[in-house]
Amino acid sequence: MAGSSSGTLFKLTTFGESHGRAIGVIVDGCPAGLPLTEADLQPYLDRRRPGRQAFTTARSEADEAEILSGTFEGKTTGTPIAIVIRNTDQRSRDYSAVKDICRPGHADFTYDAKYGFRDYRGGGRSSGRETASRVAGGAVALLFLKSLGIEVRTEILSIGGVPASEAEEVLSEAASEGDSLGGVIACEVTGLPIGLGEPVFDKIDADIAKAVLSLGAVKGIEFGEGFDAAYMRGSENNDAFEPVCPAEAGNGPAASGERPALRPATNHAGGVLGGMTSGAPLVFRTAVKPTPSISRPQHTALSDGTMGDLEIRGRHDTCIVPRLGVVIESAAAAVIADHLLRHMASRLEGIKAFYGR
Amino acid sequence: MAGSSSGTLFKLTTFGESHGRAIGVIVDGCPAGLPLTEADLQPYLDRRRPGRQAFTTARSEADEAEILSGTFEGKTTGTPIAIVIRNTDQRSRDYSAVKDICRPGHADFTYDAKYGFRDYRGGGRSSGRETASRVAGGAVALLFLKSLGIEVRTEILSIGGVPASEAEEVLSEAASEGDSLGGVIACEVTGLPIGLGEPVFDKIDADIAKAVLSLGAVKGIEFGEGFDAAYMRGSENNDAFEPVCPAEAGNGPAASGERPALRPATNHAGGVLGGMTSGAPLVFRTAVKPTPSISRPQHTALSDGTMGDLEIRGRHDTCIVPRLGVVIESAAAAVIADHLLRHMASRLEGIKAFYGR
Amino acid sequence: MAGSSSGTLFKLTTFGESHGRAIGVIVDGCPAGLPLTEADLQPYLDRRRPGRQAFTTARSEADEAEILSGTFEGKTTGTPIAIVIRNTDQRSRDYSAVKDICRPGHADFTYDAKYGFRDYRGGGRSSGRETASRVAGGAVALLFLKSLGIEVRTEILSIGGVPASEAEEVLSEAASEGDSLGGVIACEVTGLPIGLGEPVFDKIDADIAKAVLSLGAVKGIEFGEGFDAAYMRGSENNDAFEPVCPAEAGNGPAASGERPALRPATNHAGGVLGGMTSGAPLVFRTAVKPTPSISRPQHTALSDGTMGDLEIRGRHDTCIVPRLGVVIESAAAAVIADHLLRHMASRLEGIKAFYGR
Amino acid sequence: MAGSSSGTLFKLTTFGESHGRAIGVIVDGCPAGLPLTEADLQPYLDRRRPGRQAFTTARSEADEAEILSGTFEGKTTGTPIAIVIRNTDQRSRDYSAVKDICRPGHADFTYDAKYGFRDYRGGGRSSGRETASRVAGGAVALLFLKSLGIEVRTEILSIGGVPASEAEEVLSEAASEGDSLGGVIACEVTGLPIGLGEPVFDKIDADIAKAVLSLGAVKGIEFGEGFDAAYMRGSENNDAFEPVCPAEAGNGPAASGERPALRPATNHAGGVLGGMTSGAPLVFRTAVKPTPSISRPQHTALSDGTMGDLEIRGRHDTCIVPRLGVVIESAAAAVIADHLLRHMASRLEGIKAFYGR
Repeated sequence: MAGSSSGTLFKLTTFGESHGRAIGVIVDGCPAGLPLTEADLQPYLDRRRPGRQAFTTARSEADEAEILSGTFEGKTTGTPIAIVIRNTDQRSRDYSAVKDICRPGHADFTYDAKYGFRDYRGGGRSSGRETASRVAGGAVALLFLKSLGIEVRTEILSIGGVPASEAEEVLSEAASEGDSLGGVIACEVTGLPIGLGEPVFDKIDADIAKAVLSLGAVKGIEFGEGFDAAYMRGSENNDAFEPVCPAEAGNGPAASGERPALRPATNHAGGVLGGMTSGAPLVFRTAVKPTPSISRPQHTALSDGTMGDLEIRGRHDTCIVPRLGVVIESAAAAVIADHLLRHMASRLEGIKAFYGR
Repeated sequence: MAGSSSGTLFKLTTFGESHGRAIGVIVDGCPAGLPLTEADLQPYLDRRRPGRQAFTTARSEADEAEILSGTFEGKTTGTPIAIVIRNTDQRSRDYSAVKDICRPGHADFTYDAKYGFRDYRGGGRSSGRETASRVAGGAVALLFLKSLGIEVRTEILSIGGVPASEAEEVLSEAASEGDSLGGVIACEVTGLPIGLGEPVFDKIDADIAKAVLSLGAVKGIEFGEGFDAAYMRGSENNDAFEPVCPAEAGNGPAASGERPALRPATNHAGGVLGGMTSGAPLVFRTAVKPTPSISRPQHTALSDGTMGDLEIRGRHDTCIVPRLGVVIESAAAAVIADHLLRHMASRLEGIKAFYGR
Repeated sequence: MAGSSSGTLFKLTTFGESHGRAIGVIVDGCPAGLPLTEADLQPYLDRRRPGRQAFTTARSEADEAEILSGTFEGKTTGTPIAIVIRNTDQRSRDYSAVKDICRPGHADFTYDAKYGFRDYRGGGRSSGRETASRVAGGAVALLFLKSLGIEVRTEILSIGGVPASEAEEVLSEAASEGDSLGGVIACEVTGLPIGLGEPVFDKIDADIAKAVLSLGAVKGIEFGEGFDAAYMRGSENNDAFEPVCPAEAGNGPAASGERPALRPATNHAGGVLGGMTSGAPLVFRTAVKPTPSISRPQHTALSDGTMGDLEIRGRHDTCIVPRLGVVIESAAAAVIADHLLRHMASRLEGIKAFYGR
Repeated sequence: MAGSSSGTLFKLTTFGESHGRAIGVIVDGCPAGLPLTEADLQPYLDRRRPGRQAFTTARSEADEAEILSGTFEGKTTGTPIAIVIRNTDQRSRDYSAVKDICRPGHADFTYDAKYGFRDYRGGGRSSGRETASRVAGGAVALLFLKSLGIEVRTEILSIGGVPASEAEEVLSEAASEGDSLGGVIACEVTGLPIGLGEPVFDKIDADIAKAVLSLGAVKGIEFGEGFDAAYMRGSENNDAFEPVCPAEAGNGPAASGERPALRPATNHAGGVLGGMTSGAPLVFRTAVKPTPSISRPQHTALSDGTMGDLEIRGRHDTCIVPRLGVVIESAAAAVIADHLLRHMASRLEGIKAFYGR
């Protein structure tokens, strides 16, 4: 299918199934000289790891990343960084019950239709477990961004329709009923240079939208005012500009000095203008659906083609929203890393300076 | 940069600035044998054309497409289809007033920052006019899809926060105040084979999200229940499956016969499971911001770096939502065309049949 | 087919058939700020133009390039540069004779097999005329390289097996017999920074090989000693290094200062080590086959499937080698331009400096 | 650098350094349903393995491939196939002697220049060891091709300038003098459908040239008559066509029936016309330089910047040509696999048939 790679210069390629031997990622195009060891990756993987929060699956994977290549004496060398995470918790159980069933809300049905069969153990490639590979790769991107002073943060806005801070009750209720909940996650990126993003198809918001929507649980994304902008007037939604002293402009030498430096005075746009970063924080929100893995019986087609009540046993997350923050940060970071590298090619002047010509 | 191309096998490359000589598109990878003439493209361009609806700009471009290559005797030949639209309405007016101004909500600021200067005539490459190229290319995709029985439709759900059918009043009001309005557009694609989309990064919803968010006016997208899914339980949001007789399965010979054919009984997912089409209609909604071009004075930084009231004259759309439907259809169609071609490579069995081996 | 684009950051997309309305190219990713007008392109197109040298076809195309987009006030803006060349010499003659014939040595046969039919007028997309698009795009690359002090030159080594300087006799002979000749062309690129090229698949010599072999007339390429290296010993073929004062190292600030600067003392390798430029001139040679268009009768399958003598009338080049030099320079330049841009992303240190962080 | 991936639909991504923990490859886009186990890969890896032929390095790597993902119950699933080969023979020796030296003919110099430093153990990423990853990935391609009746074979034409069958003497001589030899390898692919390859940049010979030239030891490639074509006349070099009964045409149902089937009567072109396969065997030859690793002293710049005699100890191949055949087959197979998949999208008619519409 060749859909397992993402990025132009900073490129991730993930592999692996939920219950195969291992999952992992190749990070190709990471600049040489970035300090990187397995210990640097682990905190990111830990944030995604199951079994660490209440209401997440009890499956306990150590999720220990091993770096097979691409670093030397603690630094990246510019060559591809291969990161492998062994699947340690592959209980050898009997999957024959789910083998011919298409679980509602899962990709079983479409994998079958596309490939003629599937690795049915635990969801195979469509399992949320694949996102551990993205976090491993995204962690490299996050560390690269950090070295340039760029920070990526997420915050849970709501779970099951109530503010994140008050969600414990709805979570308990859903858990006790064998059901699941979704939520909304906000992401903010600060410290960005102005101008990242490539007109017209590779706008930075478009690329982030793709990266985030490629997470199986995500059903929507919006930038800045997002869907609310559809209810506003231009005069309300436009961000006026205000002057800023060049020292605060934050865009490095390449852009300064030509005219009075400006910045958006408000940020309805969410930090993007024409698909390029405006210098204001990049802000987007993501809609996460309730995980389809529920233990409540579901009335659906069974393996023999008749309708009946399907009960799926196993270890389920009541809500994956708490584990998804770092996955979204990873997705955004990989896109931004790619655009940081691509942006350097924008102007003849900058290229001449780079090559000393 | 190099962000002006989109697609893997069915690839669009657009070019052109608002007030340059011409805009256009290269469609590379359109299969040979599709009937195609300029007359086939024109209805799509006409739907996007300004000056045809109330509350849209009075700029009257004929928007006549000329096909320079890629067809012979009324059919595509498999070679790249170059389509050019001359800019006929390039009033030679004085742009010196806007040259050094960054209009609020526009990409002037980011183009300046990225490239050091810009073609300031009418927004240059960031103008909505660029979407005419996308419609020309998307029309080819739409015709290709049509030949396979796939239909793409859009519908305006709301304008300025009121249902589209009742929007005239808010539009008049906004127009009279020199202001602008946004809206929400729904898109539905029917007749799709099951299994289109490539795990894991190139999910079909992810690719559509990228294509649609790469339209300057779009600030959000959601599939199926979208943001509402964040408020639902798994048991509500999951789509059960029901048996279907194979003749209705609609996936062609490659997928039939292996097991009882199924289909989703409901469509909360919006026609996508694990990033692949499920056979249910593909459904998404798009948030369109109010166009930033307003004639009301805006308090912002002026060209000399001081704050002041900026008044922008010219021909503005009060609301571009009515013109945007065909642009969104075009974006979706190009992505789907690409995935129709990529999907053929999924199974050894299908490949053997294709090559008669 | 989607094979009409080339390059990662500096990207060419060509279109057009020999006897269609126009041919052309989109150059996407050219840095902003490069002086560029139609007058700058014309000398390159003139070098490729037919009818300027003896023994080339008498077809006289003006080959005037029109720039439709991507420049403003005489400079590139960073947006895609669309260049169109109208086909002015489309004699409306009767092609029914060649319509069902597969001319020996031509791509008629494979186009038919692939697409089911073809634009048979003058070779369609497989015509050598397509290379005019590449020269138009390559000229932009050559001008970009020139602005950085990089020069690309070609020289004809032999024609029909004799040194270029003595070829007139064999050319006359071949012409009088309605036959054609090939030749060998050398290309040399000087002024290159050290380190251009990306391990391991996108080595700079590999990318140049692809670009040059994608010219229909080319049947072989070799770098440095090339095929002769297969006859040498390691001790003969290895290039020793010698110290060089840093001022001469020519690699700009990014690479200097770390260790004693070196350079290859000889250049058996042709300026490439491990797929990256070594600072020595990049040197390669190209084998050009005799053009398949000959007026001598050829015994081959006719349109009715019987064998017979095929005589092809029309305007033929006895030898296209003299016209091909600028095409090869264009191909090499586009690859090098792309690698100049990609190379900037190699080191964290260089990226920090670029962004002033 | 992001140069570690190759292919559009059938995509290889390699990783790993000579003396790191492991090397490997991700094969993304392999169709589902191909029988594949580690035992299927091993014979290919064994052919490349050192220490199996005389005059090759005594380094003895087991080169055992482990498949981490992408197969289930002995068949490919359509998901990425990760293959890892652990580096077992990493003698912990002292590399400080070579650390600051740029070995003649090696990529040490260019890696240093590009990245600021390198993994100097055994050549790092530029080591010939990287090709084991390509063979692992190429083996998957070769098995896929085999399942369609396509065979790829190589033959050594000459070593050190003498026919392969008589090379033992020159090899002994070179070995005893601590020197090395190159050679010429021919490759032939049979059983190909007609029409594989995408005009104009992604011609199949161009893509093979890139893949083969991306092998560090290769300095030239030629197709069919190759450089000899530069010495021939068109009337000698053109391949006439002859009729063939459709049953022998070998192109599957998609291409037959439209006109009398033909085939080239000779094969000067090497099986390619206009960058597409002609149905005749695809034939190319590759020039392999003598390996730069020699134990003879070499007069070159030492680590202190002075000239002196450099002696490199270690295990060297006198000649890698015998080990390179399977590497070239792998490179060609990966390209052909990619084009087999891409070609399916060429015609509307074939697409309609595939989807049953």
